[in-house]
Amino acid sequence: MAYDVRNRLTDLRREFHRYPEPGWREFRTTGRIVEELERIGVDEIAIGRDCLATDARMAVPDAAAIEPWLERAREAGVREDVLEQTADGHTGVVAVLERGEGPSVGLRVDMDATAISESDEPGHRPADESFRSEHDGYMHACGHDAHVAMALGTLEAVAASEFSGTFTVFFQPAEEISGGGKAMAEGGYLDDVDYLLAVHLGLDHPTGSVVAGVEKPLAMAHITVTFEGASAHAGKAPNEGANAMQAVATAIQNAYAIPRHDEGMTRVNFGCIEGGTASNVIAEEITIEGEVRGETTALMEYTRTELERVCYAAAEMHDCDVTPRMISESPSVDSDPALRDLVGEVARRSTGVHEVIETADLGASEDATYLMERVQESGGLASYVLVGTDHPTNHQTPTFDIDEESLDIGVSVLTDAVLECARRRP
Amino acid sequence: MAYDVRNRLTDLRREFHRYPEPGWREFRTTGRIVEELERIGVDEIAIGRDCLATDARMAVPDAAAIEPWLERAREAGVREDVLEQTADGHTGVVAVLERGEGPSVGLRVDMDATAISESDEPGHRPADESFRSEHDGYMHACGHDAHVAMALGTLEAVAASEFSGTFTVFFQPAEEISGGGKAMAEGGYLDDVDYLLAVHLGLDHPTGSVVAGVEKPLAMAHITVTFEGASAHAGKAPNEGANAMQAVATAIQNAYAIPRHDEGMTRVNFGCIEGGTASNVIAEEITIEGEVRGETTALMEYTRTELERVCYAAAEMHDCDVTPRMISESPSVDSDPALRDLVGEVARRSTGVHEVIETADLGASEDATYLMERVQESGGLASYVLVGTDHPTNHQTPTFDIDEESLDIGVSVLTDAVLECARRRP
Amino acid sequence: MAYDVRNRLTDLRREFHRYPEPGWREFRTTGRIVEELERIGVDEIAIGRDCLATDARMAVPDAAAIEPWLERAREAGVREDVLEQTADGHTGVVAVLERGEGPSVGLRVDMDATAISESDEPGHRPADESFRSEHDGYMHACGHDAHVAMALGTLEAVAASEFSGTFTVFFQPAEEISGGGKAMAEGGYLDDVDYLLAVHLGLDHPTGSVVAGVEKPLAMAHITVTFEGASAHAGKAPNEGANAMQAVATAIQNAYAIPRHDEGMTRVNFGCIEGGTASNVIAEEITIEGEVRGETTALMEYTRTELERVCYAAAEMHDCDVTPRMISESPSVDSDPALRDLVGEVARRSTGVHEVIETADLGASEDATYLMERVQESGGLASYVLVGTDHPTNHQTPTFDIDEESLDIGVSVLTDAVLECARRRP
Amino acid sequence: MAYDVRNRLTDLRREFHRYPEPGWREFRTTGRIVEELERIGVDEIAIGRDCLATDARMAVPDAAAIEPWLERAREAGVREDVLEQTADGHTGVVAVLERGEGPSVGLRVDMDATAISESDEPGHRPADESFRSEHDGYMHACGHDAHVAMALGTLEAVAASEFSGTFTVFFQPAEEISGGGKAMAEGGYLDDVDYLLAVHLGLDHPTGSVVAGVEKPLAMAHITVTFEGASAHAGKAPNEGANAMQAVATAIQNAYAIPRHDEGMTRVNFGCIEGGTASNVIAEEITIEGEVRGETTALMEYTRTELERVCYAAAEMHDCDVTPRMISESPSVDSDPALRDLVGEVARRSTGVHEVIETADLGASEDATYLMERVQESGGLASYVLVGTDHPTNHQTPTFDIDEESLDIGVSVLTDAVLECARRRP
Repeated sequence: MAYDVRNRLTDLRREFHRYPEPGWREFRTTGRIVEELERIGVDEIAIGRDCLATDARMAVPDAAAIEPWLERAREAGVREDVLEQTADGHTGVVAVLERGEGPSVGLRVDMDATAISESDEPGHRPADESFRSEHDGYMHACGHDAHVAMALGTLEAVAASEFSGTFTVFFQPAEEISGGGKAMAEGGYLDDVDYLLAVHLGLDHPTGSVVAGVEKPLAMAHITVTFEGASAHAGKAPNEGANAMQAVATAIQNAYAIPRHDEGMTRVNFGCIEGGTASNVIAEEITIEGEVRGETTALMEYTRTELERVCYAAAEMHDCDVTPRMISESPSVDSDPALRDLVGEVARRSTGVHEVIETADLGASEDATYLMERVQESGGLASYVLVGTDHPTNHQTPTFDIDEESLDIGVSVLTDAVLECARRRP
Repeated sequence: MAYDVRNRLTDLRREFHRYPEPGWREFRTTGRIVEELERIGVDEIAIGRDCLATDARMAVPDAAAIEPWLERAREAGVREDVLEQTADGHTGVVAVLERGEGPSVGLRVDMDATAISESDEPGHRPADESFRSEHDGYMHACGHDAHVAMALGTLEAVAASEFSGTFTVFFQPAEEISGGGKAMAEGGYLDDVDYLLAVHLGLDHPTGSVVAGVEKPLAMAHITVTFEGASAHAGKAPNEGANAMQAVATAIQNAYAIPRHDEGMTRVNFGCIEGGTASNVIAEEITIEGEVRGETTALMEYTRTELERVCYAAAEMHDCDVTPRMISESPSVDSDPALRDLVGEVARRSTGVHEVIETADLGASEDATYLMERVQESGGLASYVLVGTDHPTNHQTPTFDIDEESLDIGVSVLTDAVLECARRRP
Repeated sequence: MAYDVRNRLTDLRREFHRYPEPGWREFRTTGRIVEELERIGVDEIAIGRDCLATDARMAVPDAAAIEPWLERAREAGVREDVLEQTADGHTGVVAVLERGEGPSVGLRVDMDATAISESDEPGHRPADESFRSEHDGYMHACGHDAHVAMALGTLEAVAASEFSGTFTVFFQPAEEISGGGKAMAEGGYLDDVDYLLAVHLGLDHPTGSVVAGVEKPLAMAHITVTFEGASAHAGKAPNEGANAMQAVATAIQNAYAIPRHDEGMTRVNFGCIEGGTASNVIAEEITIEGEVRGETTALMEYTRTELERVCYAAAEMHDCDVTPRMISESPSVDSDPALRDLVGEVARRSTGVHEVIETADLGASEDATYLMERVQESGGLASYVLVGTDHPTNHQTPTFDIDEESLDIGVSVLTDAVLECARRRP
Repeated sequence: MAYDVRNRLTDLRREFHRYPEPGWREFRTTGRIVEELERIGVDEIAIGRDCLATDARMAVPDAAAIEPWLERAREAGVREDVLEQTADGHTGVVAVLERGEGPSVGLRVDMDATAISESDEPGHRPADESFRSEHDGYMHACGHDAHVAMALGTLEAVAASEFSGTFTVFFQPAEEISGGGKAMAEGGYLDDVDYLLAVHLGLDHPTGSVVAGVEKPLAMAHITVTFEGASAHAGKAPNEGANAMQAVATAIQNAYAIPRHDEGMTRVNFGCIEGGTASNVIAEEITIEGEVRGETTALMEYTRTELERVCYAAAEMHDCDVTPRMISESPSVDSDPALRDLVGEVARRSTGVHEVIETADLGASEDATYLMERVQESGGLASYVLVGTDHPTNHQTPTFDIDEESLDIGVSVLTDAVLECARRRP
């Protein structure tokens, strides 16, 4: 590796790790990225509103849920101009390096954390080495802290190289809730990208392993459904109500029974439910949160259409109204074999890489697919790269951690891939 | 009792008992009644088509189910003119006695049997005394054989009395399937009736007991629902089907869960189901038979409306078509207190009556209510009278039988009541 | 009326109206009643723990829900000895008047309020005349404020009369949640009562009307059911979970479909539901609150047994555990005709009473039935008396109010009934 | 091709086509095969009972369903010794050719027909050329007539060749109902087989195409479930019944909702239902037929276990008994790559073969897998070979037919494969 950023990478990752912020509330994270970008020196920095299509944002929390995080960031010293650009759910930033003639290459990383309380048990390194989350109830349990660090490292390396062309780094907010991908895909900075790389650490691949381009991320839609009936006294006149409890039970039973599909895997789930007022009152309003997935976007849409049909009929059956609301979604997009091959070749030559796997099923959902899809539709190539890391426990658990050795490896593979892209004409 | 018809009544009842015929197929029964009416001598006999509103008939079987019974009756020697008048589901007969000035009094009895195989065990009197059913699989298990005998006996007694006015006897077909009541109510002969008596034996009341007028017969509707989807190979492409099996299961679950009503008792049931072709095929068509009841006609209609809503929504949920068909129905009609009082008074004076109960809930359905309703709507009075009889086992069981002592008592009470009605001006 | 307490009654009722307290938290109410009892002068006052069977209490809230109400009462100046006696959900008080030889007569009233925000619209008299609830979110919307005032008025009147015998007044807590009746029934003060009167205002009967003894209060049980399964990632491996959402949906559907019963009316309802963690997680735990009722205690118990069977089977079906917990219950107990007749006679002679109805169906549940049942089991007589009052809107609505004229009438009828009981030997 | 059997093959196939017999009733078919085997001259013929493990047979029809087919075969002149050996559901035959030293090679074909009425429309060649089914309501709609012809042709070719070793041909009954595979696998003749070939025509592969060895036949189980409750009068006392209708509806709804599995595709279906007696009777007994499938045997068994849990819990919920009966099943077994390669090589050299596909998913179920599994467990190799044929319409349709050109090709490929196996030592 031409450029040693190991210590700096580790420090950065640990700093982001200490201050995890959930989707559309990454104010401090955005602020710190901007500082780093200014330190590195890039040609353009587009913050929040400037790099997002406001109307394409999904799963934006309400003001009351955003405000405390903005305040906390302000207290932590985040600059007012950044806060202004990112307010009301407009976090995220795009950095552009203009280096003369050549292809336009992009790198996309995510930056949000999840609502998990980080372990404080001995043996959990962030606790032992004092970089455990300082935001109670939130944690970087999926490695996005490291993704941001690797993106900054790669940007610095590319800036210091002979790279010729345009290099754009997308720090995308709200990946965990599938909220930010579409808005950033339509934010204007992706339009001329010829090669797009997205990256994720781990996912059961050990340090030293690289997957050149994943396939079959699951298309996903997150849906909230509210059933509204009419209350009545359950003892006195149950017939006078319109029972949202019966409607929702009918919907649940039939949702899970949506027919399996001959073209591939589908999933459906209702995970949360809440409603009603008292045991002796016919329930007037119940809300249920669920999701559908599919091996392809079409399969996800088949399942969503059926789910909506089920909900409408269940409501009709019990004389209720129903409002299914789409909270967020993401398509299924495969990596391009040509770009995947390029990454594979580069990875085989990189220090620290012991194993290169051509492709693997992602088996999860990812809204980087919105960016990939847009690039592919414009004639560009995209690949979703996995950089292995030893992780002691599963993603999304309180003791998740990464092997920081993998930060270097990631920067090395990504930098070499960016440079190699620039050498090829699209 | 003014008129001793005991032996004749018993003989008649036993003859009808030997040749039970199901609803709309009482060809032989009609033929024998006509013969008796001619023997007694009445002023008008209206057979089948002449006493029924054809379009108001319900639950008429198809031609293939009717034909064998017509043939059997023909072979038994029933006259061709009777067969012609009753063909195609037009059984039943009305007899009119014109005796000068006076009120118009009616008596309604039913005449059909049920699809139960009569016991041939020793101890079952019809078997022991050789008047067991000769029509395999069918039996008079609800006493309609005795009802016909009592009506003929009453007619003969009234004819021989000082009665002044008009006396009309309605031998109504197809009561068990709620098929004939409406057609006879609208057949023309009920229009000027001032007092209508309907009669039933037994129903857990012993010999010597009389209920002067019952209340709360359950309003009832018998419904058949067919769900039609689309078949598909269940292993290969279940998503290509529209699953009638899922639709019907959803309908069943939600039908039984129709809200109980604050105004009184309701019932709902699906009793029979059949459909589908093979275990590996998504079921295309399933038919289910059910019924709804209510303490009042409005409560039955509430339940029917909800049941239909459930079926339509269940079909919609699984992309199926659905056809609910009303097979037959009957309203809930109470006895008039004034006529009930008259019957009570008369019964208290009748030989053989030890106990007169003013009123009791019927707790079952009865399509005599159509005739009662029509009389009441025209300003007349109606009462549904129970004449007790010791019955060894429940109605609708293979060992049902009556105490033939009650035949006399019934004729006596009914005759006295008819004469008493005639004495009063409406 | 021998004793004019009109102004005092109105003042008392309005004071209680201003400070509504929910079940097991009637600290201030208890304190004020004790003050009044001391003013009137009675022979024994048993407060809280001293008049309740601790283990028989039901629906007691947890400490966190009780504490703020205790504090608020303390700040309002309630005496420490009263607070001590009533702490931890032991509100309520019993007063005993010993007046020589004679029968033991009891009067039971309830004292808790409901979680309804009282209207502040013009036209709502408590708002117009400044005695609207000062406890936000709570309100005397069922007249228990007036019940307490009437009981105190009756006690004062009896104390001032020629009454000979023992007169015990039961101020029972937690009626709205069926929590206090059983504990007070078993608290020791009911054991020798010969005649027990319970009283309620209104229930659609106007001022001047009295129902001498109600029938058919609905037996009721309030049940909370928790389903516990195992979470799993709904996209990745739904088969690894045990889905509490599917279990609860199956339970709901089948609970409403519990068969209607031939012996009378039953009710079943699930009114509240909450559980699950996220749309993409198989729900691990869901809790649902419901109730069953019956026209008789046996019918309620039939429905409860069936409901539990449904819940256990639904859990088993989805490999979940289930814990149905009985929160509270109350039996169905009819008024004794003999005592009802006594009340009727007395009421007919009372000033202000224009109409005396012998009996009426309650059509609701009431845990006074525990006290009535205990008296009846010991050979005594009990009657549940309705005193009519014009109420502008339904009970349990934000604009509920009473006609204060009815307070006098109630005291008059109850006092006369107590005196009449004393005149008769049991 | 070394051996021209074209005309004979066509004649044989057409003869079998004219006399289709369903599973366990292939009496005439067995008889004709035995005649052909005697004509060809083999070393051992094991008929019916002698080549089947009686207890391992599945889906055997009852005597009444077998008898008419036995009679029809007797009338057609089938020998009594064959009828005796095959009576009571023991059809099928195994032929052994002993040709000195060498490996033991097996070939398995199926021989039963399906319950489809063959088209008599012009354009359907069997109708046009007078070899349409003479057994009304039954038809060779899946090519088993041709499979038998090809097996006989291959046997004759091998017998006439230089083959050294043992060649055993398995004419397996009852494939369509998954009934015969297990019994023949355990019948004794498979124990020493080193190489087993199974063959099927068509399945959307055209004439001239060969698939050397299929993968992923779906494991399958066919299950019948009977729910038994207790009847009661639905109007009078629904609570006295145990409602099989509600139990079965609950089972259906929850069966389709069995969780999808992370390890692969599963299927579940209930395809037929029947039960209950009358609309006004709580249904006492309902039977439902269904099936489960899985991409692997373990996935099928997961689904079956869950299905049984659902049925038991649904019965328990409604106080019913339940009896799930396994009618038949078959595992999922892949072809061995080594034998698949051998077949592929041989097929590439065969006349008439234009395309050799290495492997393809079967996408259906097949009980040849029992025989393949047994060979593999004993250390042998097995491959399921598809021989393409142009078929005008889908398998299992009234106008299914094959291109008889493919009979030669099949015999050629199979014969060459058998000879090639013999050349290799296992």
